[in-house]
Amino acid sequence: MDTDELFNLMREKIEQTLKDVINRVPESELRFMLSYHMGWEGESNGVKVQGKRIRPLLTLIGVAGTGGDWEEALPAAAGIELIHNFSLIHDDIEDHSEMRRGRKTVWSIWGVPQAINAGDLMFSLARNSVLDLQKYIPVERVLMAIELLDQTCLSLTYGQFLDMQYEKINQIDIIDYWKMIGGKTAALTSCCMKMGGIISGASSETISHLSRFGEFLGLAFQVVDDWLGIWGDESQTGKSTASDLVEGKKSLPVIFGLKNCDGFLEEWKSGIGNLQKAQNLAETLELCGAKAFVEKEAEKQTLLALEALHLAIKDEKYANILEELTEGMLHRKK
Amino acid sequence: MDTDELFNLMREKIEQTLKDVINRVPESELRFMLSYHMGWEGESNGVKVQGKRIRPLLTLIGVAGTGGDWEEALPAAAGIELIHNFSLIHDDIEDHSEMRRGRKTVWSIWGVPQAINAGDLMFSLARNSVLDLQKYIPVERVLMAIELLDQTCLSLTYGQFLDMQYEKINQIDIIDYWKMIGGKTAALTSCCMKMGGIISGASSETISHLSRFGEFLGLAFQVVDDWLGIWGDESQTGKSTASDLVEGKKSLPVIFGLKNCDGFLEEWKSGIGNLQKAQNLAETLELCGAKAFVEKEAEKQTLLALEALHLAIKDEKYANILEELTEGMLHRKK
Repeated sequence: MDTDELFNLMREKIEQTLKDVINRVPESELRFMLSYHMGWEGESNGVKVQGKRIRPLLTLIGVAGTGGDWEEALPAAAGIELIHNFSLIHDDIEDHSEMRRGRKTVWSIWGVPQAINAGDLMFSLARNSVLDLQKYIPVERVLMAIELLDQTCLSLTYGQFLDMQYEKINQIDIIDYWKMIGGKTAALTSCCMKMGGIISGASSETISHLSRFGEFLGLAFQVVDDWLGIWGDESQTGKSTASDLVEGKKSLPVIFGLKNCDGFLEEWKSGIGNLQKAQNLAETLELCGAKAFVEKEAEKQTLLALEALHLAIKDEKYANILEELTEGMLHRKK
Repeated sequence: MDTDELFNLMREKIEQTLKDVINRVPESELRFMLSYHMGWEGESNGVKVQGKRIRPLLTLIGVAGTGGDWEEALPAAAGIELIHNFSLIHDDIEDHSEMRRGRKTVWSIWGVPQAINAGDLMFSLARNSVLDLQKYIPVERVLMAIELLDQTCLSLTYGQFLDMQYEKINQIDIIDYWKMIGGKTAALTSCCMKMGGIISGASSETISHLSRFGEFLGLAFQVVDDWLGIWGDESQTGKSTASDLVEGKKSLPVIFGLKNCDGFLEEWKSGIGNLQKAQNLAETLELCGAKAFVEKEAEKQTLLALEALHLAIKDEKYANILEELTEGMLHRKK
């Protein structure tokens, strides 16, 4: 089976597992909300709005790459994807985002109260799914998997807290940025890989390398995301260039600018909500070194990720798959 | 040790366990939010605003009453209390309640986004706490405990969904009311008792009786709560008589009225937000039989609870404690 075939098969099984878990909810508008969010039902549903399911794929490849049977990891892979999606439902409320992947968000259709509750349900379902590992692996490992998931959720909520805190502060150290995205983004990608190792019964050394790989991958991903939010090509990202500047988001380039570029704060503030000014600001940031800094950081995190990857995964086939995926993430255009 | 001493000791240990769990969050405003909600810090903190911790107490007595060591159940008891409190933080947002136990709610101090996230964190901590059972009991039982907790959370969110749905509907069958409070209230009290049986290693028959006891106890509790929300004495409940009618809450007496009392719908609508009309409405409901119906239901559920209790718990000391507690719940004034 070549990589594309493998990915297609994995995606198909992930989707089926996710559907089985969500079907545990009695048929109701509540279940429909979840199904809508997952991209299976409602307006313009379909593969395009379902997201890439990159996290569960990482988990399954982590299992296969350390000698396990990836099909046995499906309940955990689905659980992680549900954690990711529960946090999206709640983040959309917290950020007041009305649209996601070109469709209305859950809260903007059903209102904040029902959306909070739907997110809580998806959070419960995530854990419920992981428990299905009992069918395949020893209970001790199931408990390790659950413990990892819970620990990850603590990091996620702490990262989200920091992110919202930073909205109110204009002087943020770069180290605080790493702490924040370490929780918000990297904790979950790290969890994906670590989960793979736990399920396949890998050594604690391998699990620790897997965890580091996932962490640096998540950091690199977020840094590239921040780069794209300012210098991304509109025709590729589907968002206007400098969109993060228009929204006033404190992404890495902005944090760098606030710290290192003279008079940046005032200029940055005046760009919020003003596309023209925001686009000029993107040039200011580039001239003052923010773009180069962010690119260097993305490369650094990617290198660290690859280093950990090769320590973790000796099977060439799967190491190559993950290496390609990591490189692709660094050079992605959207 | 007499009952009061036992309760005091249990409460003390529950509080300490809860604090230990919440202290796993890095020191931050986020941790303060949780600590504030639990009644330990911030404005007018203290025992009076901490709630009765009735759910963890039920769990511990469930363990002791079926021959287990209640101290070993503390991580689960604390976990259940955290589930209860996470749902309160989110419910307060969903219901737009600005006050709880005479203090501002989390969202009304820190805003909706931070409050959603704080609730999510408390939800994660609940599960994190239950995992500590590993120190004391075999892994198989730990998994059963976690499975129970997750299943309960599915019921809780489904019940909360129904509750919000019913706000929009004026014809609700009594059977739908039981479904709703079965999820919103009784699932968690049932979980408390069942958890006790799981931890002490009781037989599946005993566990099933415990579960039924907890369920009927929760139903009775909610029915009495609904009674108090209309006919409760202001000097005891701290809320005005008929307060549920002023708020337009679809509690059991109202559902009965909407179904059985001619012309009630219009009269009920005109009472919302109008204390005088709401108080007249309380009389209308009484005349039309709603009060007697609700009282009969409260007694019926209490009897069913007691029946299950005596099947579940043979140890006279603990059976008496729970019987008193159940009777006390039926005849409570606030």
